[in-house]
Amino acid sequence: MDIAILGFGTVGAGAYETIRDSHCGLNVKRILDIRVPLGFEHIVTSDYNEILDDPDIELVAEAIGGLHPAYEFVSAALKAGKHVVSANKHLICHYFRELHALAAEHHCMLRFTPSAGGGIPWLYNLQRQKRCDEILWLRGIMNGTTNYILDAMQHLGSQFDEVLNTAKALGYAEADPSADIDGLDVRRKCAISASIAYDTALSEEDVPTFGIRNITRRDIAYFDSLGMTCKLLGCARRDGNRVIAYVEPTLLPAGAIESSVGTNYNCITLFGRKVGRLSFLGQGAGKYPTGCAMVQDMLDIAAGIRFPAPTITQVVPDPSIYPHRYYIRTSAHVPDDIAERRDGNVVMTVPLSVTDIHRFASQAQNTDPRIFLAGLEDNIE
Amino acid sequence: MDIAILGFGTVGAGAYETIRDSHCGLNVKRILDIRVPLGFEHIVTSDYNEILDDPDIELVAEAIGGLHPAYEFVSAALKAGKHVVSANKHLICHYFRELHALAAEHHCMLRFTPSAGGGIPWLYNLQRQKRCDEILWLRGIMNGTTNYILDAMQHLGSQFDEVLNTAKALGYAEADPSADIDGLDVRRKCAISASIAYDTALSEEDVPTFGIRNITRRDIAYFDSLGMTCKLLGCARRDGNRVIAYVEPTLLPAGAIESSVGTNYNCITLFGRKVGRLSFLGQGAGKYPTGCAMVQDMLDIAAGIRFPAPTITQVVPDPSIYPHRYYIRTSAHVPDDIAERRDGNVVMTVPLSVTDIHRFASQAQNTDPRIFLAGLEDNIE
Repeated sequence: MDIAILGFGTVGAGAYETIRDSHCGLNVKRILDIRVPLGFEHIVTSDYNEILDDPDIELVAEAIGGLHPAYEFVSAALKAGKHVVSANKHLICHYFRELHALAAEHHCMLRFTPSAGGGIPWLYNLQRQKRCDEILWLRGIMNGTTNYILDAMQHLGSQFDEVLNTAKALGYAEADPSADIDGLDVRRKCAISASIAYDTALSEEDVPTFGIRNITRRDIAYFDSLGMTCKLLGCARRDGNRVIAYVEPTLLPAGAIESSVGTNYNCITLFGRKVGRLSFLGQGAGKYPTGCAMVQDMLDIAAGIRFPAPTITQVVPDPSIYPHRYYIRTSAHVPDDIAERRDGNVVMTVPLSVTDIHRFASQAQNTDPRIFLAGLEDNIE
Repeated sequence: MDIAILGFGTVGAGAYETIRDSHCGLNVKRILDIRVPLGFEHIVTSDYNEILDDPDIELVAEAIGGLHPAYEFVSAALKAGKHVVSANKHLICHYFRELHALAAEHHCMLRFTPSAGGGIPWLYNLQRQKRCDEILWLRGIMNGTTNYILDAMQHLGSQFDEVLNTAKALGYAEADPSADIDGLDVRRKCAISASIAYDTALSEEDVPTFGIRNITRRDIAYFDSLGMTCKLLGCARRDGNRVIAYVEPTLLPAGAIESSVGTNYNCITLFGRKVGRLSFLGQGAGKYPTGCAMVQDMLDIAAGIRFPAPTITQVVPDPSIYPHRYYIRTSAHVPDDIAERRDGNVVMTVPLSVTDIHRFASQAQNTDPRIFLAGLEDNIE
């Protein structure tokens, strides 16, 4: 199958080299980029119409990132009857409904496994499991940068700023790390995962999110003393026609699988009514893992592998359906009716809904902008 | 698609109920069993020809177990042009080459994901990854009974016999637990996994195997003192046209993912040159997990999902290609040339090939039938 790769950055080049090295039957006929890397003069173009108008090119692999012009390029490809593979979580999350409708209308495949989980075949296996099982819940470590930070704080005793600087030096963290440490990257991956699992189309705004910006070495020492490990998790579950998806630092027993996930690895789990727990661990980012996941989606399309198209049903987001307990460390006042136990400036709460804890936190932040909180998932299964 | 299920025991019934509950488009037209469960009179038959001769039945799901008559039934189905899904590791391991040849000759699909890993889509994802990546190694916890035993010995301080009896009472272990505790069950799953990963057809005899029959509470306490956890692993790797597959108790650092795999869970990993580490964790056995994995294979076939048929190449088994260190606890004499360090009746060896350690152990067993040994995988990646 002849394909085109849009964007020859890290992921695009990873996909290109994976195809080149694996002799898997795909042929990269065109690469769209404004730069022309040495040796690629014969296939690189900066004119997208050369790709759109080429009837040999049956599939477009989008590795540009961001909303625009990725949205225009992907839409045009689908309208031209070309299959699309995208690694772009921002695009897929924002235009989930529109792009699926366009793909259905033009009888094309739209695949985006690398958009959540990088090299891990998470979304693929989630779709596959859903064919014969009910997904009771999903949750996971979906961001390698924050896992690297939390792991180093726990095991090397580092301070947040110190390890963030190391992560930047190693290329794990961006110069502006907000998307990672405030949980916004996980939020998109969580919205996409929940939309697949529950036949809906969640937007970012449907996913209440706390990050790890305010976590301190003392928080971690406190968790250690409780035998708990803190991980930033994206979570989702369904109750009838209501679905909750949220991102929060989460305290897990030291023996939980997620607690052993070190460095920049990701680990995402589904719990099916029939199959029980299925967890998938691997590299959530990086040139070859993510490139490889793009190629896998391309090979599935080339082999004619089709899952039932997502049906967007009447499932509505409702962040109030799954109350659970929280750890709060703050100098702000925590009312008695939500405090189950106090220990200095630490409070363990009674079970609170995600709506409730966000309402409390947004008020408390006025007096204590350094507030940190984490959910307790000690009895999740 | 109309299908038939052969054998209405635990796994067959799990597959049946998964199909019934999921409305996934499969129709169980016939069940082959000598018993006729109440309410199934209209579809149960004890005459296999009723299935073979029914042109509506496009797929046969074998959940009988054992070599015979499973082999005759599966062969006849393939010869009649019917696709086959099997959960039977004994059958697939023993007739790997013959059944694949028969499927190719009759243009049928042969799928057996549940034969290794139960509910975990391990073999499926291994085949999928192999399309565009080179599998540098694979290893995993492939048996829930022995993991349950090792986990309880480590965390509850139980003795081997005590926890084996509990496992029997819970239905995790058979009345005759030899196949589990001597590693024979893992051996078949390991042979199948290595055959898929490396385009070969290993037999059980190609997989040198140690079990955990002789492990004691004192061995485990010693591992604890080293910060190590003991797990029974099936392992395989390739070096040029030589492949090694072996089953042995293995000492892993306490922080390794496998070390956190508790109770009867399985966790199997591939390491790809491109994708890096991918691990898959879930229930390796049980009515619904295994039944579910059977249904997944059926749905793939119904959806036309085909992977390149395994090509059986010139790769030969060679248990000498991957020397590594061993823990040996024995009252037998351990020669100086293989002992790196001694501590009472414990020896840490120099790196030894699997061939070498088996040669040593079979001699030592003459004087010490209670000898226990475990490989060290401290620097595997």
